Amino acid sequence: MDDIRFAVLGTGGIGRRTLEVSQHKDGLTAVAACDRNGVAIDHSGLDVDELLEATEGNIASGPADDPDMAADGGTATAETADGVKQHGEEAGIVASSQGEPTETPIDDIIAESDAIDAVLLALPNLEHDFIPRVAERFAEADYEGVMIDVLKRSRVIGMLDDREDLLKESGITFVCGAGATPGFLTGAAALAAQSFVEVEEVEIWWGVGLKSGYEDNRGTVREDIAHLDGYDIETAREMSEEEIEALIDEHDGVLEFHDMEHADDVLLERAGICDAEDVHVGGVLDVRSDEKPTTTTVSVTGTTFDGETGMNTFELDDVTSMEANVNGPALGYLKAGVRNNRAGHYGVFGPADLMPGF
Amino acid sequence: MDDIRFAVLGTGGIGRRTLEVSQHKDGLTAVAACDRNGVAIDHSGLDVDELLEATEGNIASGPADDPDMAADGGTATAETADGVKQHGEEAGIVASSQGEPTETPIDDIIAESDAIDAVLLALPNLEHDFIPRVAERFAEADYEGVMIDVLKRSRVIGMLDDREDLLKESGITFVCGAGATPGFLTGAAALAAQSFVEVEEVEIWWGVGLKSGYEDNRGTVREDIAHLDGYDIETAREMSEEEIEALIDEHDGVLEFHDMEHADDVLLERAGICDAEDVHVGGVLDVRSDEKPTTTTVSVTGTTFDGETGMNTFELDDVTSMEANVNGPALGYLKAGVRNNRAGHYGVFGPADLMPGF
Repeated sequence: MDDIRFAVLGTGGIGRRTLEVSQHKDGLTAVAACDRNGVAIDHSGLDVDELLEATEGNIASGPADDPDMAADGGTATAETADGVKQHGEEAGIVASSQGEPTETPIDDIIAESDAIDAVLLALPNLEHDFIPRVAERFAEADYEGVMIDVLKRSRVIGMLDDREDLLKESGITFVCGAGATPGFLTGAAALAAQSFVEVEEVEIWWGVGLKSGYEDNRGTVREDIAHLDGYDIETAREMSEEEIEALIDEHDGVLEFHDMEHADDVLLERAGICDAEDVHVGGVLDVRSDEKPTTTTVSVTGTTFDGETGMNTFELDDVTSMEANVNGPALGYLKAGVRNNRAGHYGVFGPADLMPGF
Repeated sequence: MDDIRFAVLGTGGIGRRTLEVSQHKDGLTAVAACDRNGVAIDHSGLDVDELLEATEGNIASGPADDPDMAADGGTATAETADGVKQHGEEAGIVASSQGEPTETPIDDIIAESDAIDAVLLALPNLEHDFIPRVAERFAEADYEGVMIDVLKRSRVIGMLDDREDLLKESGITFVCGAGATPGFLTGAAALAAQSFVEVEEVEIWWGVGLKSGYEDNRGTVREDIAHLDGYDIETAREMSEEEIEALIDEHDGVLEFHDMEHADDVLLERAGICDAEDVHVGGVLDVRSDEKPTTTTVSVTGTTFDGETGMNTFELDDVTSMEANVNGPALGYLKAGVRNNRAGHYGVFGPADLMPGF
């Protein structure tokens, strides 16, 4: 496959780590990145090391950001849901020698998108339809290429589907939910299902140890809190930093989640693996240790053509960090998306749609 | 995806089980099948139940067949490597009310291939180049569609690659090695690799309990024997049935294999996952029990972008039979092949090529 020139929208945790991991991969060249304050574009390839060094630990964050984000750490790009530009301090990408300040970072990337094969949206999903509306803007500019996000919430998929005709007309292959979960783990579930002719249950159970990554991922933690009993997106959004710290203290730093609204369910249903209601997602987050509090496991229970009921399992080693399991798969699915885009497959795809059929 | 009309060449163990499993799957219609004696074609869909009932336990088998086969049980279609037709007894597909005797079963299928989206080759690979040469015949007839095999031996992949231009010109998407191993397990390895930026080792370890499937899979057992220390394809081919039984007796029915020549290695290398030499395949076959003597496991050891070395694992439940793990994935990859074929992706693909990029 020819070299893939890609852009990253958002330089929070996910955006920065994607740039970093891409340097270890063949055939990927980062040519553009942006955040709320600026944009860096170099079609011959960004100096990723310089960019990362300049932006590391230098990102605006805090309760002003919407908690329902792309898991990028409550940071990143530029515009609030109502389209009004927000100007932060001189943080982020403008601190890089490659960064230029701009009030229209996304439009600046769109203006250069003829020379961009794929766009990874590591944006805070300020409203549920923020990322779908960014996709719309690329489509309205007749972008032909891949867009990929690492969103988690089920309801965003439907909003992308609502825009599928527009995306197809433009020539966009949109891969949604392509991080760790959904993404890596729904892909594993789709593959593990191949032994069976009927899938009864998919259980996705994750462990994350986030001590050293906590600062970078406060937004994700806030989003996760919305999944706790007695909380929802609105209540989690309204919590102050102090309230969040108090809640974490109460739990000794370890939060356990069950039956989360994660898009794994709708993504597995649309790939024909099982009904959404047969997918269960939960996990344990420890913000005071980098050790995983539990092993990330996908268990697929089904019945074989010869009538046996069994469970296939996929386990990630505890030493593999959340970042490794989000950004590796995101780039893997980005490559698969480009393969499909170049073959003329346009529209909205879940990770499991890119696996063997069921 | 529109309905897929597919043909099965060979009605040994693999061919029959593929037909059976396809009945549990959405969007698949078996329209043709053949073996050495006959052909059954019905473009509105074969009566699979009748065909299976008529052919079950009614298949020619024995030492006349080449041991290096597609794992379909030493049975199936028609022509020896030198192109001379062999006529067996009135066994196999002609026993079905849908079967017609023919001396040219493969040509008969080729003649109808305009209305066939995919062809699964469950043929004994009488010589290493038998399946590649069958592909050649379809290409020479300008077949446009998917061909898929469940071959195991590494060297066949190169023979298919040698014919890639011809396959591409014709419009054929050839998916090779799409059974359990390679196939299912190389797909799992390609996915498990996504946590890592460098893969150090892939270990594929399989367990098969084959008591009730032994009669159907004598050819596979003979092929496996070629992997034992002190044996090769030629010596295994020349063994009489009695000699094979004596060998199995010596081992109390349990054969253990290490460093097998399985195409997992070249298929993972071509997908960019790791070097072929870093892939190790082995396993344990018990022909006297249906219980698996060991758990089928894929272990992928690699290093993450953040410098941790770990091992991700994929385990198949012991209750999932070899047949479930060969035929489910074969049909899954067949569907993926059709998706690619319809998008104009022609040539030779390994299962891991159909997964997220690495």
